[in-house]
Amino acid sequence: MSKKILILPGDHIGPEIMAEAVKVLERVDSLYSLDLQLDHALLGGAALDATGVPLPPETLAKAREADAILLGAVGGPEWDKVEAARRPEKGLLGLRSELELFGNLRPALLYPQLAAASSLKPELVAGLDILIVRELTGGIYFGEPRGIRTLENGERQGYNTYVYSESEIRRIGHLAFSLARQRDKRVCSVDKSNVLEVTVLWREIMEEVAKDYPDVTLSHMYVDNAAMQLVRAPKQFDVLVTGNMFGDILSDAAAMLTGSIGMLPSASLDKDGRGMYEPCHGSAPDIAGQGIANPLATILSVAMMLRYTLDKPEAAAAIEAAVSDVLDQGLRTADICAEGDTRVSTSEMGDAVLRAL
Amino acid sequence: MSKKILILPGDHIGPEIMAEAVKVLERVDSLYSLDLQLDHALLGGAALDATGVPLPPETLAKAREADAILLGAVGGPEWDKVEAARRPEKGLLGLRSELELFGNLRPALLYPQLAAASSLKPELVAGLDILIVRELTGGIYFGEPRGIRTLENGERQGYNTYVYSESEIRRIGHLAFSLARQRDKRVCSVDKSNVLEVTVLWREIMEEVAKDYPDVTLSHMYVDNAAMQLVRAPKQFDVLVTGNMFGDILSDAAAMLTGSIGMLPSASLDKDGRGMYEPCHGSAPDIAGQGIANPLATILSVAMMLRYTLDKPEAAAAIEAAVSDVLDQGLRTADICAEGDTRVSTSEMGDAVLRAL
Ligand SMILES: CC(C)[C@H](C(=O)O)[C@@H](O)C(=O)O
Ligand SMILES: CC(C)[C@H](C(=O)O)[C@@H](O)C(=O)O
Repeated sequence: MSKKILILPGDHIGPEIMAEAVKVLERVDSLYSLDLQLDHALLGGAALDATGVPLPPETLAKAREADAILLGAVGGPEWDKVEAARRPEKGLLGLRSELELFGNLRPALLYPQLAAASSLKPELVAGLDILIVRELTGGIYFGEPRGIRTLENGERQGYNTYVYSESEIRRIGHLAFSLARQRDKRVCSVDKSNVLEVTVLWREIMEEVAKDYPDVTLSHMYVDNAAMQLVRAPKQFDVLVTGNMFGDILSDAAAMLTGSIGMLPSASLDKDGRGMYEPCHGSAPDIAGQGIANPLATILSVAMMLRYTLDKPEAAAAIEAAVSDVLDQGLRTADICAEGDTRVSTSEMGDAVLRAL
Repeated sequence: MSKKILILPGDHIGPEIMAEAVKVLERVDSLYSLDLQLDHALLGGAALDATGVPLPPETLAKAREADAILLGAVGGPEWDKVEAARRPEKGLLGLRSELELFGNLRPALLYPQLAAASSLKPELVAGLDILIVRELTGGIYFGEPRGIRTLENGERQGYNTYVYSESEIRRIGHLAFSLARQRDKRVCSVDKSNVLEVTVLWREIMEEVAKDYPDVTLSHMYVDNAAMQLVRAPKQFDVLVTGNMFGDILSDAAAMLTGSIGMLPSASLDKDGRGMYEPCHGSAPDIAGQGIANPLATILSVAMMLRYTLDKPEAAAAIEAAVSDVLDQGLRTADICAEGDTRVSTSEMGDAVLRAL
């Protein structure tokens, strides 16, 4: 049966890296007879400029129809002055929420070929392989009430609500534990239960979920300590599970530990395994249009899509092997290029992956 | 005029490190004729065990009378099962709130003698000197409503409120800018204004405060990016100013970058410069009672007290010089001890500082 893939190039370097990822996707489609149907739509700043909203109804309709979505990156300084509700980021948040993509998987993996790029000492990061599982459709990102109001004394006050229900915590817990089963069988749940009631409930429900996975070990850590431990000794972690806000902060810190955020893909899954796949990095307005952006995170997002939504682990592994291959050949885009490497453009990198496939 | 200093040893290693800091405080008292009056009280787990509450009325009364407070550290696993409202941490939070200690100063400073202890590559942290200014009496730590409720469908929901008013943002802004004036004149304000309304107001008020400090440069950064930048290139920062929750996370990450969190003091100030001073590290139950804890962060907290509340910069500088001196002598407690160093106990370290004074 044919599968529908929606392509959302987004803004700035988005279309550039997407062009390479689509080349790779089309190649595996024919190599593995996947019978994919690709469609395109607008999201973020590009959608705002064309239609006046960052998530046009047509994009949402196509997204609902799709089995999987591949996203480039959204946002840029030219939309900084747009009012909050129509900012490019709201398109992304709207899509996550409308499609109930509650399970965000962000691997922080160190490619041995790029070990020198980490800002940490090599012995602390060699072999690093953490999976951060971030809740993506709840927490303070979506909690109500929210806004800015004027108090009786005339001054303004801003407010947001950090909220999680048992069922929201339970479903992200189950996702984290089942993923840990396929790895080193350790889950560390990150909260701030010494201060925040919402995370007292979080911790309690994680304990409850853990009972269904006797082969997986659960530990708990306060978020401030987790931020320290990621810097001090990141290899102590296997799977980290946490809420939307803490996950945003910790996953970016963890990605940066590898020194090659341009290499890291992510997946955002719903309860049936349908998902949106995108690189961890942003739209990089500073290097857009120069053909130098690194397409590998987006290409590796295609691999995640094959593994988690399309259930084609061999095709996923083939892409990952091809990426490793081009790194072995010494090919590097500017962001990961060191002395002695061969510097290539965005499209040259895409072509190299095609050849290696 | 005599000044009242309240000593709160706290839990686990708290009393051990405090004993050394008090030795140093008494020595500078006589060397510089400061006319200090020292008093003691219970806080945290010690108070809970003795009186049933983590912040006894007697401690609070003494704290209100004091010009400055010196705190060791509170908390430990033996109180993990105590209900939320009486946990040791609540004693600390209560003190911050009751005394309106809104301005938390957390320097992240790399001691050249300890450069090798950082998990980052030496060139990235050599000379690191960041000041994190964290709002300490507002935000999601204290926002109402908060709690765990049962929804109509029978499931429980946890909730907290992230809230800041203009005046709260303004006063921490002024503190950050005036501190930046005495440093490299750069303030970076950290928020998540692309998602959270409360930080949209935060950013707006920071812009407004900046107008009073034309000699200081203001920049803004999203919290996820700040966590990345601290790992990637921490020396880009001078003063970082942020809310209570983000400040908790980022200041711990920044402290850990130095590799010697056992060396870092902190100050929590009210609007008149009265303050509470404490090490950045916790109560370290795992090493309590062994006489091996590092007392230098608490000793350096005494120096901060002399500088910010007692207005005795020469005495502060003398303590800092003495600490640098003992490091030059190669004396190290276990946490910072490397090959070739002379390992000393908690009290030997305190004595060495006294000799160097
Ligand atoms: C762009 C922004 C709204 C988003 C988030 O905070 O979730 C981004 O930082 C991310 O992590 O995907
Ligand atoms: C103990 C805890 C309540 C406290 C906080 O979160 O503020 C601590 O982590 C700190 O940073 O001083």
